[in-house]
Amino acid sequence: MPAPHSRIPVERIIKPQSLAIIGASEDIGKFGGRFMHNVVRHGYAGRLLPINPGRETILGRPCFPNIGAAPGPIDVALVAVPAAQLRQTIEECGAAGVGACVVITAQLGEFSEAGAALQDEIVQVAAKYGMRLVGPNCLGMITPTHALGLTSSPTLQYAETLPRGSVGFVSQSGALMGTLFVLGYDHGIGFTSIVTVGNQADLELCDFFEVLIEDDETEVICLYVEALKTPMRFVELAQRARARGKRVLAVKAGRTEAGSAAARSHTASLAGSYAAFETVCEETGVLLMDEPEAMILAAGVLARAPRMGPGGIGMVVSSGGGGAVTADRFTVAGLPLAQWTEATRTRLDTHFPRTHQNNPVDLGAHFGALGPHIFKHAMDAVADDANTAAFIYTMTPQPLMPQTVDFVIDVWTRHTKPTIFVLDTSRFGEDVRQKLLQSGMPYLTRIDDAMRVLELLVRERDHGALAERAAPLRPQGAGPLSKTLPSGFLTEPEAKALFRSYGIATTQDRTVSTAQDAVKAAEAIGYPVVAKGVSRTVVHKSDVGLVRLGLSDADAVTQAFDEISRALAAAGDAGNPTVVIQEMVRGEAELIVGARHDEGFGPQVMVGFGGVMVEVLRDVRLASAPLDHDRARALLRKLKLWPILDGVRGRPKLDVDAVADTLVRLSWLAHDLGPRLQDLEINPLIVRVAGKGAVAVDGRGTLTEQA
Amino acid sequence: MPAPHSRIPVERIIKPQSLAIIGASEDIGKFGGRFMHNVVRHGYAGRLLPINPGRETILGRPCFPNIGAAPGPIDVALVAVPAAQLRQTIEECGAAGVGACVVITAQLGEFSEAGAALQDEIVQVAAKYGMRLVGPNCLGMITPTHALGLTSSPTLQYAETLPRGSVGFVSQSGALMGTLFVLGYDHGIGFTSIVTVGNQADLELCDFFEVLIEDDETEVICLYVEALKTPMRFVELAQRARARGKRVLAVKAGRTEAGSAAARSHTASLAGSYAAFETVCEETGVLLMDEPEAMILAAGVLARAPRMGPGGIGMVVSSGGGGAVTADRFTVAGLPLAQWTEATRTRLDTHFPRTHQNNPVDLGAHFGALGPHIFKHAMDAVADDANTAAFIYTMTPQPLMPQTVDFVIDVWTRHTKPTIFVLDTSRFGEDVRQKLLQSGMPYLTRIDDAMRVLELLVRERDHGALAERAAPLRPQGAGPLSKTLPSGFLTEPEAKALFRSYGIATTQDRTVSTAQDAVKAAEAIGYPVVAKGVSRTVVHKSDVGLVRLGLSDADAVTQAFDEISRALAAAGDAGNPTVVIQEMVRGEAELIVGARHDEGFGPQVMVGFGGVMVEVLRDVRLASAPLDHDRARALLRKLKLWPILDGVRGRPKLDVDAVADTLVRLSWLAHDLGPRLQDLEINPLIVRVAGKGAVAVDGRGTLTEQA
Repeated sequence: MPAPHSRIPVERIIKPQSLAIIGASEDIGKFGGRFMHNVVRHGYAGRLLPINPGRETILGRPCFPNIGAAPGPIDVALVAVPAAQLRQTIEECGAAGVGACVVITAQLGEFSEAGAALQDEIVQVAAKYGMRLVGPNCLGMITPTHALGLTSSPTLQYAETLPRGSVGFVSQSGALMGTLFVLGYDHGIGFTSIVTVGNQADLELCDFFEVLIEDDETEVICLYVEALKTPMRFVELAQRARARGKRVLAVKAGRTEAGSAAARSHTASLAGSYAAFETVCEETGVLLMDEPEAMILAAGVLARAPRMGPGGIGMVVSSGGGGAVTADRFTVAGLPLAQWTEATRTRLDTHFPRTHQNNPVDLGAHFGALGPHIFKHAMDAVADDANTAAFIYTMTPQPLMPQTVDFVIDVWTRHTKPTIFVLDTSRFGEDVRQKLLQSGMPYLTRIDDAMRVLELLVRERDHGALAERAAPLRPQGAGPLSKTLPSGFLTEPEAKALFRSYGIATTQDRTVSTAQDAVKAAEAIGYPVVAKGVSRTVVHKSDVGLVRLGLSDADAVTQAFDEISRALAAAGDAGNPTVVIQEMVRGEAELIVGARHDEGFGPQVMVGFGGVMVEVLRDVRLASAPLDHDRARALLRKLKLWPILDGVRGRPKLDVDAVADTLVRLSWLAHDLGPRLQDLEINPLIVRVAGKGAVAVDGRGTLTEQA
Repeated sequence: MPAPHSRIPVERIIKPQSLAIIGASEDIGKFGGRFMHNVVRHGYAGRLLPINPGRETILGRPCFPNIGAAPGPIDVALVAVPAAQLRQTIEECGAAGVGACVVITAQLGEFSEAGAALQDEIVQVAAKYGMRLVGPNCLGMITPTHALGLTSSPTLQYAETLPRGSVGFVSQSGALMGTLFVLGYDHGIGFTSIVTVGNQADLELCDFFEVLIEDDETEVICLYVEALKTPMRFVELAQRARARGKRVLAVKAGRTEAGSAAARSHTASLAGSYAAFETVCEETGVLLMDEPEAMILAAGVLARAPRMGPGGIGMVVSSGGGGAVTADRFTVAGLPLAQWTEATRTRLDTHFPRTHQNNPVDLGAHFGALGPHIFKHAMDAVADDANTAAFIYTMTPQPLMPQTVDFVIDVWTRHTKPTIFVLDTSRFGEDVRQKLLQSGMPYLTRIDDAMRVLELLVRERDHGALAERAAPLRPQGAGPLSKTLPSGFLTEPEAKALFRSYGIATTQDRTVSTAQDAVKAAEAIGYPVVAKGVSRTVVHKSDVGLVRLGLSDADAVTQAFDEISRALAAAGDAGNPTVVIQEMVRGEAELIVGARHDEGFGPQVMVGFGGVMVEVLRDVRLASAPLDHDRARALLRKLKLWPILDGVRGRPKLDVDAVADTLVRLSWLAHDLGPRLQDLEINPLIVRVAGKGAVAVDGRGTLTEQA
């Protein structure tokens, strides 16, 4: 939504009624020339106002010496001046009543401190006038639905038209616009609008994300994200997009240190926590992908594909060898292949021997002489099969190519099932490609991309139930938060007291300061016991000898107390030793359960297998807090080691409900702590067999001071 | 090597001096017409002999009514007649002195029992004459180095020339030939020869693999494998290729049930064990890949790329956003990125701020105005860096495209480092593509493929040390095999006796038949002990109550003996109960170590984490037997859970040497048993801390009768 002071709403920026190009030129070798040529070539129908003090006309349009001399109102001014002239130009645009400036000028906030200062200045100047800014360091926008090609990308001279369709794209990278526009163009993928947001000094990714959600023609929204300016707004918008039935695809840089470094230097924004972003995408149904090219190709298919229903993938191929490898790859990737119904088998019997009625059906393996009717027969049989939820055809160089493509287009037109065409013929299949472009049927050229699309369809299908859940209810006894919370690094007793106040089961613990009290505590709890030194400074207690397990009599307890006291002193804890005596808990598995407050997305919880497994396998899952028991159980089922909880090969089922309950309660604790939470961790949570519970055996945490 | 009775050597089949086409036609709509047109179009220089009783000439060449009427000698006859005429045609070819028939006719062994019978018949007919067969159910061959396009593929009418280069390809799939030929053609990849072997009724994949190894022009050999006819010959040839410095790339169908089914119906051959094949590829340096298209693209790059030296990947990009995502993907995939040396940083300082000297270097993030010298500067700085072992440039639509491509070609020409060009411009970059084709520099269009090539380069580099090892030596006390081996399903005592005879440490065991003897045995071994019922029929002892752990006194042993006796009787074991009393072994990890005799590749051993992990994570590695201690240790290091053996996060290092020794000894046992071995398994092998050994606690196996 535009800020109250905005002169124009954001949607008008991508569909301006009038457009000034500052520094316009006829020379396509110049920046301002490329913008002019691209805008004119693609038939922008609004008022186009070239600004150049040295020319009367440019490309036949009357030219104005400065923005103030151009007739208003001016919705958008394109600003690609050198940095030295930027402040002045923005000031002039503001004074001339311009609605928004699209600022191409780079080497600002993303580049240096001086650049960042100038960027701040132009934001202030624009705000003074209620003028909005896109960029700086952006590369403009392309709005095919408005015949607007407002970018310097040379790809717009290559493209004969701006392909209009239902895919929208917002990018924090300018260069990606040209790359993905032309990829889409060559694959017949049509767009509503592509917007680059650059450094997001004023308007940001979410502003245009919202415009695309509200735009009736946009059905699939693609996002290239480096760092979100308003993470919680992103979550809200993702939910809104979902509610409107729009698909959202995203790629985010900064999954690793290397990617973060590259992204940071690129847009001057911290790449942010990838895992937290991944979590909210999963929860809101945003389809996160691994690369931008694949995202646009997938968007092209999804824009023309219904959602996938129950069943598997039905495949037809023209190369048996290629099909066998594809079947292997699908299976390894967990993509479900359909099993033909008996009706389909009977139908296939006409032309295909039973021994060859596999999935994929190989068009080469039919009875008798070749004819187009055989190909059509196979396609229809597979596409019509009740178990086929998605249809895929891979065309390799083969007989009857032009006829075959018609059969596939027919399947795509006739069926309410996603249909994927893989044109694996290199440039040899140009006539087929032209037929596809004319029909509007999307196509891919690589199985890699087909697998990505199928995985998205399956992910989308599996996600259905998850996203439409009501807000979680607070379980009995989860809180309230104590009025007097500790702060800083929490000791084990402090952390466990916090857990208990939210109804999380912990070990029976007694804190003591003398060996005598330690023995008394042990006798009250019952042998064997554990003794642990309590320190606010030691992070890994075992490493410095602060933990003694399996103490089975008074002598052992006394000796352990003395050793721990010495270790505490050695670790720098002055004064009386503080030692916890606790029951020795046994169980079937050790989990780690944690919570943190993400700066952008708020509280999140984490669960995984503990001990050595968390180090070696990194087998953990995250969720936004608070969450409900169903979601907590779903999280557990996604762990690689889930079969251990579920009782693999004769082992007992463990108390999954108790683990889920622990997660839910911790999530409410995280929620209630809000920004005071830095991190909390139960490690280990010892899980017993089903019905016997789960117990927090150790815990730690860090809370910041009360705000 | 040709069989002694062969009329011509195999290499002459792909480079025939004379070639008859049976059923030749001028009509390109007919099979025999397509062969004629393709052969003539690409300038076959040998004697071409069209055979057709109804024509005087075909495409200007004199035509003969039958093969017997054509002037000999005839090296190769192309046979694409209907199945009904096949036997007669083969007979005529044999009588006419033809060297080899390339049989296109399909619906034979791959299709039906009648077809298989006919296939056997033609093999016998051909053998009678010393005539060789390629196929049936193949699609011919393309030998650019001999100007021979002997295939019906329509892609040969699209291709202006047969691109000559150093890649050879043998395929069990006919259709893949056209698909990959045209993919290579469009990417400027040149071939020595492409051969399809179809049903391998006579000549098979290894025959042509050998021809390519011996061919001086062939540097990279690609193989598409469904099932090997002679697996051990494949191993020998792979080793020979490696010794000659030739790279071998392979894709094999049948990794999963679905792929096996599809491959089986395709070439009538069992797909064989993928894991065993994967193991021999790893051991012989064959670069196994996931799909055929990627294999040809990788071959194109490798044919022009030296091996990778020490260091990482140096990357330059023209799209910062794309580069950030690529850096993420490389890192997640474990592909090492280079760290710039200080010398490179200083060099980059001229045009790039320190904050932007990441890997990748983003060409957009330079000081001052754009100029081609800046691009060249960045490329050279990165390529020259001592830490850059492989260079990659990704071109997206950008300024200065034609100049930039020259800079990359210069790097590729000048450096002895693998150089990868990713042309990410869709069809917009056609002028760049033409420049690349002219220069002979290979290119890719997707990061997916670049990652595959980089992974191959790293795999090849890491493989170096492994493959050049001497034959393993038999350790002291490994064997000899007893003269009186049991057969069938082995009991635990039988299996362990076999293990001990090869020097593998097992638990101390005593076999008893009465409770009294059980107590005596326990006292001799020392409490606590384990009692296990011995049965030749029960596979999972625990499941039927045949195992009692932690028996700590005589009463417990007596009770356990009685219970096990009853369980044995219940399980159907008549007669006196046989019970093993054994020491209770404790350790830090449980492994599973096994051996089997692969029908094709002979004995192989397996090692993995046991217990629940083998079920859940399938964390196992295979090796051919026998193997040496270094290879055994290398195998262990490849386990996902290796850090547990190596001592992760304060845990002790375990006795890896003892595990390796167990594997080595089991591998000699497997080697000596030969085809009598069905399977052997130590489960668990309990591993103690370093220096304390590893003990086989349970074992089983199956041996077939003496041959």
